[in-house]
Amino acid sequence: MKKTNIEIALSQDLEPITDIAEKVGLNRDEIYLYGDHIAKIKLSAREGREATARTVLVTAMTPTRAGEGKTTCAIGLNDGLNRIGKRSIVALREPSLGPVFGMKGGAAGGGFSQVLPMVDINLHFTGDMHAVTSAHNLLAALLDNEYSRPRGAFLLPKNVIWNRVIDMNDRALRSIVLGLGKAAGQVREGMFEITAASEIMAVLGLSRDLDNLKARLGNLIVAKSSNGDPVRARDIEAQGAMAILLRNALKPNLVQTIEGNPAIVHTGPFANIAHGTTSIVAVDMARRLADIVVVEAGFGSDLGAEKYFNLVSRRPGMVPPDVVVIVATLRGLRHQGGVSPKEVDDPERRGGGRRGWTTSANTWRT
Amino acid sequence: MKKTNIEIALSQDLEPITDIAEKVGLNRDEIYLYGDHIAKIKLSAREGREATARTVLVTAMTPTRAGEGKTTCAIGLNDGLNRIGKRSIVALREPSLGPVFGMKGGAAGGGFSQVLPMVDINLHFTGDMHAVTSAHNLLAALLDNEYSRPRGAFLLPKNVIWNRVIDMNDRALRSIVLGLGKAAGQVREGMFEITAASEIMAVLGLSRDLDNLKARLGNLIVAKSSNGDPVRARDIEAQGAMAILLRNALKPNLVQTIEGNPAIVHTGPFANIAHGTTSIVAVDMARRLADIVVVEAGFGSDLGAEKYFNLVSRRPGMVPPDVVVIVATLRGLRHQGGVSPKEVDDPERRGGGRRGWTTSANTWRT
Amino acid sequence: MKKTNIEIALSQDLEPITDIAEKVGLNRDEIYLYGDHIAKIKLSAREGREATARTVLVTAMTPTRAGEGKTTCAIGLNDGLNRIGKRSIVALREPSLGPVFGMKGGAAGGGFSQVLPMVDINLHFTGDMHAVTSAHNLLAALLDNEYSRPRGAFLLPKNVIWNRVIDMNDRALRSIVLGLGKAAGQVREGMFEITAASEIMAVLGLSRDLDNLKARLGNLIVAKSSNGDPVRARDIEAQGAMAILLRNALKPNLVQTIEGNPAIVHTGPFANIAHGTTSIVAVDMARRLADIVVVEAGFGSDLGAEKYFNLVSRRPGMVPPDVVVIVATLRGLRHQGGVSPKEVDDPERRGGGRRGWTTSANTWRT
Amino acid sequence: MKKTNIEIALSQDLEPITDIAEKVGLNRDEIYLYGDHIAKIKLSAREGREATARTVLVTAMTPTRAGEGKTTCAIGLNDGLNRIGKRSIVALREPSLGPVFGMKGGAAGGGFSQVLPMVDINLHFTGDMHAVTSAHNLLAALLDNEYSRPRGAFLLPKNVIWNRVIDMNDRALRSIVLGLGKAAGQVREGMFEITAASEIMAVLGLSRDLDNLKARLGNLIVAKSSNGDPVRARDIEAQGAMAILLRNALKPNLVQTIEGNPAIVHTGPFANIAHGTTSIVAVDMARRLADIVVVEAGFGSDLGAEKYFNLVSRRPGMVPPDVVVIVATLRGLRHQGGVSPKEVDDPERRGGGRRGWTTSANTWRT
Repeated sequence: MKKTNIEIALSQDLEPITDIAEKVGLNRDEIYLYGDHIAKIKLSAREGREATARTVLVTAMTPTRAGEGKTTCAIGLNDGLNRIGKRSIVALREPSLGPVFGMKGGAAGGGFSQVLPMVDINLHFTGDMHAVTSAHNLLAALLDNEYSRPRGAFLLPKNVIWNRVIDMNDRALRSIVLGLGKAAGQVREGMFEITAASEIMAVLGLSRDLDNLKARLGNLIVAKSSNGDPVRARDIEAQGAMAILLRNALKPNLVQTIEGNPAIVHTGPFANIAHGTTSIVAVDMARRLADIVVVEAGFGSDLGAEKYFNLVSRRPGMVPPDVVVIVATLRGLRHQGGVSPKEVDDPERRGGGRRGWTTSANTWRT
Repeated sequence: MKKTNIEIALSQDLEPITDIAEKVGLNRDEIYLYGDHIAKIKLSAREGREATARTVLVTAMTPTRAGEGKTTCAIGLNDGLNRIGKRSIVALREPSLGPVFGMKGGAAGGGFSQVLPMVDINLHFTGDMHAVTSAHNLLAALLDNEYSRPRGAFLLPKNVIWNRVIDMNDRALRSIVLGLGKAAGQVREGMFEITAASEIMAVLGLSRDLDNLKARLGNLIVAKSSNGDPVRARDIEAQGAMAILLRNALKPNLVQTIEGNPAIVHTGPFANIAHGTTSIVAVDMARRLADIVVVEAGFGSDLGAEKYFNLVSRRPGMVPPDVVVIVATLRGLRHQGGVSPKEVDDPERRGGGRRGWTTSANTWRT
Repeated sequence: MKKTNIEIALSQDLEPITDIAEKVGLNRDEIYLYGDHIAKIKLSAREGREATARTVLVTAMTPTRAGEGKTTCAIGLNDGLNRIGKRSIVALREPSLGPVFGMKGGAAGGGFSQVLPMVDINLHFTGDMHAVTSAHNLLAALLDNEYSRPRGAFLLPKNVIWNRVIDMNDRALRSIVLGLGKAAGQVREGMFEITAASEIMAVLGLSRDLDNLKARLGNLIVAKSSNGDPVRARDIEAQGAMAILLRNALKPNLVQTIEGNPAIVHTGPFANIAHGTTSIVAVDMARRLADIVVVEAGFGSDLGAEKYFNLVSRRPGMVPPDVVVIVATLRGLRHQGGVSPKEVDDPERRGGGRRGWTTSANTWRT
Repeated sequence: MKKTNIEIALSQDLEPITDIAEKVGLNRDEIYLYGDHIAKIKLSAREGREATARTVLVTAMTPTRAGEGKTTCAIGLNDGLNRIGKRSIVALREPSLGPVFGMKGGAAGGGFSQVLPMVDINLHFTGDMHAVTSAHNLLAALLDNEYSRPRGAFLLPKNVIWNRVIDMNDRALRSIVLGLGKAAGQVREGMFEITAASEIMAVLGLSRDLDNLKARLGNLIVAKSSNGDPVRARDIEAQGAMAILLRNALKPNLVQTIEGNPAIVHTGPFANIAHGTTSIVAVDMARRLADIVVVEAGFGSDLGAEKYFNLVSRRPGMVPPDVVVIVATLRGLRHQGGVSPKEVDDPERRGGGRRGWTTSANTWRT
């Protein structure tokens, strides 16, 4: 009988994460442990190591709703490269807690191409998602707090554009009215988005270091003032406290594949609203620790891969991929050929008159 | 010039948490590391160790709003006991992130009576607060999800009593309307409480082990059905997923005092709405690892201490305190004697006609 | 078998209202007809007639919730005075549509002391209530419309104090959130009060003529500006349109009692929040058309009568009452003596230890 | 200098409405007066009179937003027919108070083709709009009241489809949340529509008599029950009270044109959501009192005229029009030919490539 992903994951013997760190040349004092099988790599580990690794970008044809296996393929490719003696690291995004309890399951691969410890990675992991949630909501709370100050008197509630986030598929929070009652600023409509969709997640994934992160946080636009100018996080002096909340979340997380090869799993931006790959800190770190880095880009090539080429790889110190792997499946081909989503697993179906089925872009908003 | 608490905290050299663990007889494989200075103690460490330590309960006269120094006193007492050669552990509650950014500051002690690493403990620590937040809000989301099922058709929105929580002082979320729009269940009034006020925080602090926690989670009352009967978390099969989210949060956290003595910091229930001391897992674990355990009870003796005597110490395996320390300050005495809160630091003030000033019970709700 | 009020009312033959008008010396061109049995008296009818009539104020001891019969008594007194040959008019307030469909029934008297046509008076009558509703809500709409103008940019939603009204007991409108969605100004909490509780109802009852009404409407405070100054209706130029809506409502309504004697029924302010008697226009008009005017004052003597003495009768051209009738009932006496509301009709009950039962002041808010 | 509509209206000497009634053969006791220039015709006046008049339907090509003059044309046609000795009555809809204070102005014609007294007709008139408002909102209040009864326990708030109405352009009420607070049923989203858009307005316009009206009111669907069945007004026994509120509103109103010819102005359904002509009671009454009846149908011929042919004229006792007048203007032709709305008054503009401009259907929702 076929084992489930979680059964496979739980049946594996994991190597100590200190051993994995050692494989990629990291000393014990260059990492922070989070239990026995997860570590964060200190940013100072970049010093004295050149970012020289080749980059392999794993993308896909426009996928069906179920996904076509980019993560699985990237993990398997990394394991294969290691098996033939290459020093390779796979760099993936962190799964969001929300969808874990929703329909899509986790994002830690599947079958024998998983990163471990799967349950921890899928749940709280090293708290990065929680840190993004806290920083995002702190900014929201500080903004509402402005109503109790003189300068807040001119901030009309409908001009506030900064929402709140929660790492949960909680549909009842998608449209709310907040600030009711006597003591709580102004009443207004708002919403909770899912944490992975936070602009702070994007900012975290694109920052080089804590100073750069702090500057980007300060630039976040949170409202429109009455004269039409943007109000930014730095206008309410929020970036410092936010950066403190995010200082550990900026450090990439080291885990292992089922075959005991190194994997960096860091930040979780969606490709439809952000860049859709792991952080530049993660890719850059991996490129300093290995000869080959396998990076997965979200959704189809027109989303994650395009953004990787045009946006991520153009950041300072980043480079375009040396190789691109495009995952294509018979199911996806049938889907694009016009077969309805329900019938794509039937090898006899060949698509009909209705060409150009495209998936709705799997948007996750809490 | 007098140093601030954070300056004192950051100027200290910390011992590796593995050394602290060793001091209390814990092997390396009985703890999980969270960086170099924080560890979680595995619940299996209870096995083979008897809970024999004496318990010292630190409480206080009814405090002023600023607090009278119970935490500081408890930490100092623990350091003193260790200095005279006693094997003592101090058991404290975790601070809530919300008040950290509010007026009250953290809850990790002060001056040279602090637990360290102070910043980490005050911020994300080992993610226990985040886990409680996630478990609480998962239950809320699952409950709202019932409206899309047949049995939900009879759950009138005003009968739902389970709110949401956030670990933030966010006044705009104290009174909200949620579930607006087409796709989101029923509209209703709701609120976000601060995470420390979650009933799950209380449940977590009173549970012996994961099974006991799961049973308590299942008992949580979330709504009143249309015939007046309680609807419990187990009626919507939520307790399993919640327990998974809380499995690490149930393990007590080991840190150190400024003098390098062991401290267990675990769960953060408020004394006005819950039992107001650290978890029974923490106290029990400490009593197996030392000869004396110093436990702090929240608010005045009429709240935290009463609850410790009547509720916490009567749980299976727990015992009443052997010694009680009551913190009393001149400031507090002036306050109780009728001096207004603004003048309690003036030694010349002696209180007037208006007897019996009592503090409002410092209620923290987000 | 005892007839109900409505059966008695419907069984009566009514005199043409033109005949009633003639009795008090009004020509056909001094009135507007509203069907055959209701008329409005033109304000110009005051010209050439002196306000010389004596005034009888009918008030009561603090009543039970059911009322002690002030209206019935006032109507009966008027009928009696007419029967003995006095030229007397009774001046009453208009009933509110809201309570008509609620528990309290209409306010057109009872038994053989009714004003007729009872059904019309209790329902739309001459549209005065509707006019007050329209004027009140026009002001609210104009105020919200300010948000689309530059000066509105500084009007924080929580500073708006002008609510909306409806002539209906509609509890679901007592607490609402309005202004949701894209195109509708700012979101805020608001409420609908019952029309009789509108400040405009009070203003209408206290105005001498259209110019005076317009000036009073302009003075209405609708919001607090950001610097704390009051924002008035005239600041948004609303008083003109409101006065046009109210120009007919300012004219007193002429009807008849069951015995065919003249009755003026005009405006409906509550005594708990406003002056609680008919309009000064109505009393003044009656004093020009008769030798005696019987005026009813709402609630107990401490409310309506006090206000009549101290407020209404001091308006220009008004005089204090010459006679005061205080309605006292055995039921009311028992009630004040301490008998519970449910037992006040039992003649054997004499009240117990609990002295000083007072009614909650029957507040009607929609 | 050109006079405004209101200047023209106010400069006219009006004939007593009793004279107008006499012209169409109505006795004094077949009408109720509302002041000197407005009357309601008793439904009993239908008895003994045959509905034999020819019907002229005035419609228009698809109009610009400003309207193309259907009302003006219908009034003028009626005046012309009377001038050449025909016994003709024009039958129009009542204007809504909301748009009067909005941009569109009243609906009582213009220039020397007006119905009078214009100001009264545009404001409260005979209270028909207020009666529809009251009946509509009474049903809403009774429905919400169900939540305090056992059968209401199964009426999920999102299944309620009956909104509230107000005769006002009040954009802040277009989207609200109601039922907040402890005592007010269930919280839910709702809205206020403009009274003319009330389904009760349509029902009133299509009813033959009070019994027929009551039956139609009882049929109104107000909610969907939890098993998907419709909940109707009669299920909560609301139709009786509603019919009482509407009993006078069912009687057609008699006024006059500037030339002193008879006009019936009754009910105000919009053509985009309802039938868009005056009531069948009004048309039927006019057909019994004259030889020719000029009826105006709202919006373009594809709305009001189509509905008159297919819906209104097929009611029992009604007949299709004998003559149809289609109002077409150069402005409208330019508009349809592709000239932008801002340039349609320029005789040189001839329309360009963009064919088929159509007006948005002037939807009035409060």
